[in-house]
Amino acid sequence: MKDDRKKEKANVEQSTKRELSPRKNTKKPNGHWFQQNLPRIADRLMTAYVSHGDLQHLEGKDLPSKQRISGILNDILTILFPNLLGDASLTETNVWYYLGSTMHSLYTRLEEEITKSLKYICTKEQECPVDICQERAQRVAEEILECLPEIKRLVSADVQAAYEGDPAAKSVDEVILSYPCTYAIVTYRVAHELYSRQVPLIPRMMSEHAHSQTGIDIHPGARIGENFFIDHGTGVVIGETSDIGNNVRIYQGVTLGGKSLSPEEISRLRGRKRHPIIQDNVIIYSGATILGGDTIIGKGSVIGGNVWITSSIPSNTTVTIATPKLSAQKSTKNKKERHD
Amino acid sequence: MKDDRKKEKANVEQSTKRELSPRKNTKKPNGHWFQQNLPRIADRLMTAYVSHGDLQHLEGKDLPSKQRISGILNDILTILFPNLLGDASLTETNVWYYLGSTMHSLYTRLEEEITKSLKYICTKEQECPVDICQERAQRVAEEILECLPEIKRLVSADVQAAYEGDPAAKSVDEVILSYPCTYAIVTYRVAHELYSRQVPLIPRMMSEHAHSQTGIDIHPGARIGENFFIDHGTGVVIGETSDIGNNVRIYQGVTLGGKSLSPEEISRLRGRKRHPIIQDNVIIYSGATILGGDTIIGKGSVIGGNVWITSSIPSNTTVTIATPKLSAQKSTKNKKERHD
Amino acid sequence: MKDDRKKEKANVEQSTKRELSPRKNTKKPNGHWFQQNLPRIADRLMTAYVSHGDLQHLEGKDLPSKQRISGILNDILTILFPNLLGDASLTETNVWYYLGSTMHSLYTRLEEEITKSLKYICTKEQECPVDICQERAQRVAEEILECLPEIKRLVSADVQAAYEGDPAAKSVDEVILSYPCTYAIVTYRVAHELYSRQVPLIPRMMSEHAHSQTGIDIHPGARIGENFFIDHGTGVVIGETSDIGNNVRIYQGVTLGGKSLSPEEISRLRGRKRHPIIQDNVIIYSGATILGGDTIIGKGSVIGGNVWITSSIPSNTTVTIATPKLSAQKSTKNKKERHD
Repeated sequence: MKDDRKKEKANVEQSTKRELSPRKNTKKPNGHWFQQNLPRIADRLMTAYVSHGDLQHLEGKDLPSKQRISGILNDILTILFPNLLGDASLTETNVWYYLGSTMHSLYTRLEEEITKSLKYICTKEQECPVDICQERAQRVAEEILECLPEIKRLVSADVQAAYEGDPAAKSVDEVILSYPCTYAIVTYRVAHELYSRQVPLIPRMMSEHAHSQTGIDIHPGARIGENFFIDHGTGVVIGETSDIGNNVRIYQGVTLGGKSLSPEEISRLRGRKRHPIIQDNVIIYSGATILGGDTIIGKGSVIGGNVWITSSIPSNTTVTIATPKLSAQKSTKNKKERHD
Repeated sequence: MKDDRKKEKANVEQSTKRELSPRKNTKKPNGHWFQQNLPRIADRLMTAYVSHGDLQHLEGKDLPSKQRISGILNDILTILFPNLLGDASLTETNVWYYLGSTMHSLYTRLEEEITKSLKYICTKEQECPVDICQERAQRVAEEILECLPEIKRLVSADVQAAYEGDPAAKSVDEVILSYPCTYAIVTYRVAHELYSRQVPLIPRMMSEHAHSQTGIDIHPGARIGENFFIDHGTGVVIGETSDIGNNVRIYQGVTLGGKSLSPEEISRLRGRKRHPIIQDNVIIYSGATILGGDTIIGKGSVIGGNVWITSSIPSNTTVTIATPKLSAQKSTKNKKERHD
Repeated sequence: MKDDRKKEKANVEQSTKRELSPRKNTKKPNGHWFQQNLPRIADRLMTAYVSHGDLQHLEGKDLPSKQRISGILNDILTILFPNLLGDASLTETNVWYYLGSTMHSLYTRLEEEITKSLKYICTKEQECPVDICQERAQRVAEEILECLPEIKRLVSADVQAAYEGDPAAKSVDEVILSYPCTYAIVTYRVAHELYSRQVPLIPRMMSEHAHSQTGIDIHPGARIGENFFIDHGTGVVIGETSDIGNNVRIYQGVTLGGKSLSPEEISRLRGRKRHPIIQDNVIIYSGATILGGDTIIGKGSVIGGNVWITSSIPSNTTVTIATPKLSAQKSTKNKKERHD
């Protein structure tokens, strides 16, 4: 390796010597500076990699690819809502074949990415007699395909709940095409199936992709019932061990979070119940925050906007902030204020 | 169709038989499993499509394409701010021709997408003697092009308002290049023109595209006056029937929303006034929520951060939350808390 | 130019005459309308450009490109975390060469974009004897490459702080691959170096790109210490002159902002201290707002969720909103409410 490096350095030297003429209007990078400094900077980065363990997974291991994960989600979305494709050549007669070929391709890509994620965290030094990671990935990919009809049933009900819950919705198609909750909830329902099967990395890559697209951050570990609707959604956070019943509706900026933990508690509680239970038919308005693993919002209750809750609420109860005293005073005219 | 399916199944059978050798290290999908299960899963999905009406628009109908809608918005953005193109070959001499060719291409694509959206919701069974959808789409595309100079005037004033309203803004160019409000407000002003002409689906597809890019969710139905500035913007929600005057400035996390409605009220109020009126020269600070179709914020008033308002405020009034009693207590040292 | 236009108009006339046959089912744009109206609309847009100064930078000047800025950030990200590439062909042996070639390409692109940004704002009428803008761009690009090992040290510590601070994090790799704070903080640390060297436009283009991807809006001017963690992050705003110490953790929806300013104050305070100081070991929970250039949050203090602060807090103090009086009342059954 040392020899290789020397050779490359020599090459760089040669190829950059021509550039050492006066620099005005040259479009070429500064060869002299490169020659003197690049190897040193690379060496310092290498040292940093070693001390932070960045290289331990490098040797011959692939990571799941963000781009392919996003492609997988888009394929699942069109399997669930084929009219989303907006493809005039797709008809009632050939959609069955479209499904077959898309699921075939989906399977292949799912299996590949899951295999990568399993091998990536695998600590076995020796080669296995059978490729256990790939075998397990195939089982999981099969099970995800088996889940698709049930996921279809669930997300169609979610879309219907959105249409019925939002007076601004003009049609079910509008909800499918242009509501962020469609993408966020489809992603959640798929990522949750992978999470439940202990697939590493991919469920969170999926949920973060949806978060980036929609502003809605649903941890794949959460449990969410039927007919779930999130309106607008920017800033919504649903923590890993949240448990949400049927017919629940929430608005932008709602947090279902964990309470504060000391460092000791954090390592103890990794994977334990830390987030609230929301029972059936609850509505939570914008900006409300509900915290804690033993907080239960009872059936049919309504949590008002901006409410901050850290203990349980009985069923059929409406909780609102006691109207905060507003201080209203006449402004001096012509004095416009700004901040940043 | 049944015969076709049998044939395909036979093909699949044939092509997958080779793969039934022991699976170790194979990169091919599991043929046996496919053969046994894929047709069954596809059948279940078909049944779900039928019961949810997913196939009713499939037959020979295109949907507007998200990708083309985003391309249309980007073209409009460069027509409005040609320096955004950052193209050295564009000069004062040839920008006129650039405009002509871009508007020509814009027209074609607008007309196509609008035609699709009109045909998509069209319930006519028989073919029309004249293609009414396309004729209407052409009229609308023409009118949008006619609007461009006025939209240019409005968004240039919005950009100027941003520069004047934000002490962190270094130049008008910086606002055009890197403020999310530029993209969000240009999109709103275009989507609003389409919404006003009863174009289905596309206005909300546009506003949701901008929402995804910026975190700012402005319904295309809202009415917004001149010199409008949204700073930062993440989490802003402006509802369908909001009515905003001139010289209004709002900050991140502000909601102009509707009050709670019963299911009966929802179907009654679809399309009716449900969101507040914000008069001229109002400033609304971050996190404030203003709800209701009969709530009016009077001229020149200032709504403080986190304020929650469900009734009207007179003009020239500053409303702030009465400083909430803060409970401050000395922490035990070395006890760092975390939550999620 | 006038002659050219006439010629083009003639061409358009000719090429569109064929389209003036009856319009049914034609897929071609409406030639007659074009001929009559497009030149007029283009003229009106040209007039608007002139009155808004849009053309003043057009003549032979490039703007930094959003796409290239995003490419530069992605390259830096993989230099900092090479395992993110997920490329099985990258090994401990060849990663050094990968670094060399990536930094070489990074340098070239950085230098080009910085040169553009400097020339764009340059008001010199005459050509310089030496290309000062490019020389300065080369110096800055060199300095950014020199910074990379230190940035690597900082962001690896930030990632470690995220892993230790979030009980939902399964591994450091999960944080690197799927936590929005990774992208937001890497972008901030790079953009801050460019901002500190007075590079125009690019730092804010970078920070807005990260804002668009993550919902986290960190102004490149802010100063942020070591081991910084933002959880979830949607809606976080950190203003230009904020000053954040070491081991600080903040949650979604937190604003570090400026107080209201009159227009006179705005022009006076551009670039002055307007945002708070957050000392070491502070935690700020979701939705809290801290405003003002003379507001100091003392060492080790904890700011509770939704707290609104405009004056200093001593060290080791926990500030929470005095539990707001919640008004809880039994709901009428069967009355489900919705809003939008």
